[in-house]
Amino acid sequence: MTRWSDNLPERLLMGPGPSPVPAAVRLAMARPMLGHLDPAFLAIMDGVVENLRWVFGTHNRLALPLSGTGSAGMEAAVANWVEPGQHILVVAAGLFGQRLADAAARQGGAVDVLEVPWGTALDPGQLEDRLAHTQVPYHVVALVMAETSTGVLQPMEGLSDMVHRHGALFLVDAVTAIGGMPVDVDRRELDVVYAGTQKCLAVPPGLAPFTASERALDVLRRRQTPVPSWYLDLSMLERYWGGERFYHHTAPVSMIYALAEGLSLVRSEGLEARFARHRQASEALAAGLEALGLSLVVDPSVRLYSLTTVYIPDGVEDAAVRGRLLNDFHVEIGGGLGPFKGRVWRIGTMGEGARLEPIARVLSGLESVLQRQGGVGAAVAAWHPA
Amino acid sequence: MTRWSDNLPERLLMGPGPSPVPAAVRLAMARPMLGHLDPAFLAIMDGVVENLRWVFGTHNRLALPLSGTGSAGMEAAVANWVEPGQHILVVAAGLFGQRLADAAARQGGAVDVLEVPWGTALDPGQLEDRLAHTQVPYHVVALVMAETSTGVLQPMEGLSDMVHRHGALFLVDAVTAIGGMPVDVDRRELDVVYAGTQKCLAVPPGLAPFTASERALDVLRRRQTPVPSWYLDLSMLERYWGGERFYHHTAPVSMIYALAEGLSLVRSEGLEARFARHRQASEALAAGLEALGLSLVVDPSVRLYSLTTVYIPDGVEDAAVRGRLLNDFHVEIGGGLGPFKGRVWRIGTMGEGARLEPIARVLSGLESVLQRQGGVGAAVAAWHPA
Repeated sequence: MTRWSDNLPERLLMGPGPSPVPAAVRLAMARPMLGHLDPAFLAIMDGVVENLRWVFGTHNRLALPLSGTGSAGMEAAVANWVEPGQHILVVAAGLFGQRLADAAARQGGAVDVLEVPWGTALDPGQLEDRLAHTQVPYHVVALVMAETSTGVLQPMEGLSDMVHRHGALFLVDAVTAIGGMPVDVDRRELDVVYAGTQKCLAVPPGLAPFTASERALDVLRRRQTPVPSWYLDLSMLERYWGGERFYHHTAPVSMIYALAEGLSLVRSEGLEARFARHRQASEALAAGLEALGLSLVVDPSVRLYSLTTVYIPDGVEDAAVRGRLLNDFHVEIGGGLGPFKGRVWRIGTMGEGARLEPIARVLSGLESVLQRQGGVGAAVAAWHPA
Repeated sequence: MTRWSDNLPERLLMGPGPSPVPAAVRLAMARPMLGHLDPAFLAIMDGVVENLRWVFGTHNRLALPLSGTGSAGMEAAVANWVEPGQHILVVAAGLFGQRLADAAARQGGAVDVLEVPWGTALDPGQLEDRLAHTQVPYHVVALVMAETSTGVLQPMEGLSDMVHRHGALFLVDAVTAIGGMPVDVDRRELDVVYAGTQKCLAVPPGLAPFTASERALDVLRRRQTPVPSWYLDLSMLERYWGGERFYHHTAPVSMIYALAEGLSLVRSEGLEARFARHRQASEALAAGLEALGLSLVVDPSVRLYSLTTVYIPDGVEDAAVRGRLLNDFHVEIGGGLGPFKGRVWRIGTMGEGARLEPIARVLSGLESVLQRQGGVGAAVAAWHPA
């Protein structure tokens, strides 16, 4: 009889996440279980909260990891800050922006979508225009800082001023940013921010780092209707993660261990060094892909450090290439989503993947597979002149 | 500088959960990360689904672990099967029943609560009476099979017939039952069932095993309004866990490893043997507690095998005893909730805690601490006659 763990392959995870998880973080989960109200566990929670504030760049009182993946962070953001009938503006520049609009609409929000072409960033003038000309003021303006479906890093300068001047809360998805580039919650005056652990933090998927400003908490306290989600009601969660330790639900203890260890590795490296490493990794990958003759989707000025989108050359079969990379080289890269499906690959340089060795492995694997596919044979030959 | 993991204590977890996690399960989480769409991971998911069906006692097509704790299972149940304005009856015989009523009301359900005194089980006649005399038929009848706040195991015989005869779906919380006693989803004709991993399955908290009958799925397909929770929308989740592998959210891969290993340990033991072990553990603990002169809350006929409630003797200080047990003996037991706060202790015999050695440890610790407190000195002396 085969067991689930027989012959588990070891993959180099260079897709859109999860990213490679260091052994120290994986072994942290093997630590003996503690009760969720044990003083020893509460002390670990306090350390996690302190480190989350640091990596978010905030002094917000409310900073905690939600007991679900990054998408649970999105859910919590809209469940707590979108009330039925409220006007919400969602900037959708990719799949995760669209999903945010969908989730907000499910909460009963009257959602307007500001569509931005895939592969580009929002032009602040467009947002200003929309905010200035809306009939009904928006309660919330939401956008994705690091769009994993397109590989665009949204420039954030000036946006929160604009949003606040028009009386709205600024809600931001930082899932693929956190730990790889500045989120800067306080400096940028972001109100509601959710993230994920399985990207640049190099922790397994399963938790959603979350923070909210005092302004956002004031709005939450003035809600007309109860938060429809019991599980993600932040007024209650805050009482467990804050000083009161009011029992809400059983925390996912082992995952919190992983996050505690992951954050302590980020502390050891330092944020500036880590951000620089992600930027360099992105540049190295881009240079390598271009040397292979491939074309990148996103302009360098708004290219996401942690995820690079690259066009699939004409005549090259998407699934066949990714399959060979996975099976022959044990390298995972991501396919395109939505309009990018079959047209684009998504290559992650997140956490431990944002280093030269894994980047060299993905490039050499891709080179070898593409050579056999013949699609970019000429370019590869040019790169290795005889 | 101290690290989060310095001097982590090793506790014997004999409270209401999490329960002790075997080393094999903890080490499973240390396995290398796989992508959530990797064929090797999809194969693990298939095995988990098959084993969940087996432990639930069902052939339901929809059986999967939700990416959140047991409370996320509750949330999913009400978010998918309670629509605004629908009449819902919740049997509340403890905190988790009350919480279910709260969660259903937050979804906009018109919730009636059938109150049952804490520490007792629902009398089926009472339910029949309520169902027969309601002005508006109920869409859903919900109850908690194993009430962790009171230590009562609800007898299930005849209930689903009654509920179905009155045209309602039967929604059941099996968080503290699964893996320790029969859930018997098919035989008992339960429609929507959620559970947790951190009790009798001996897996860390973080996943909610979930299943729904075809009848429940028919109702879901006929909803008038979209499911308000994007994260827990079962129509979408089913497409990822089912054959289609439609990307929804990034699965908590390491937690799924833990569940795969935990379920394979349950397979090795066999369900009958495991249920018998839980029953014997409960009886041994009850005998020991009574030998210490303590009084049990729940009548043996409806006593939960996995959690025993015992009255705190007069003059004995709740927190002091639990604190000494934790600090001097590294044994965790639970305090009371709601009306049982300060009046009752909750002692778990779940998973690896349902064995003689840990039960002996909790009893001898309790004996020693109570002797020092003097509250049951006479009884203890009587148990050890000079």
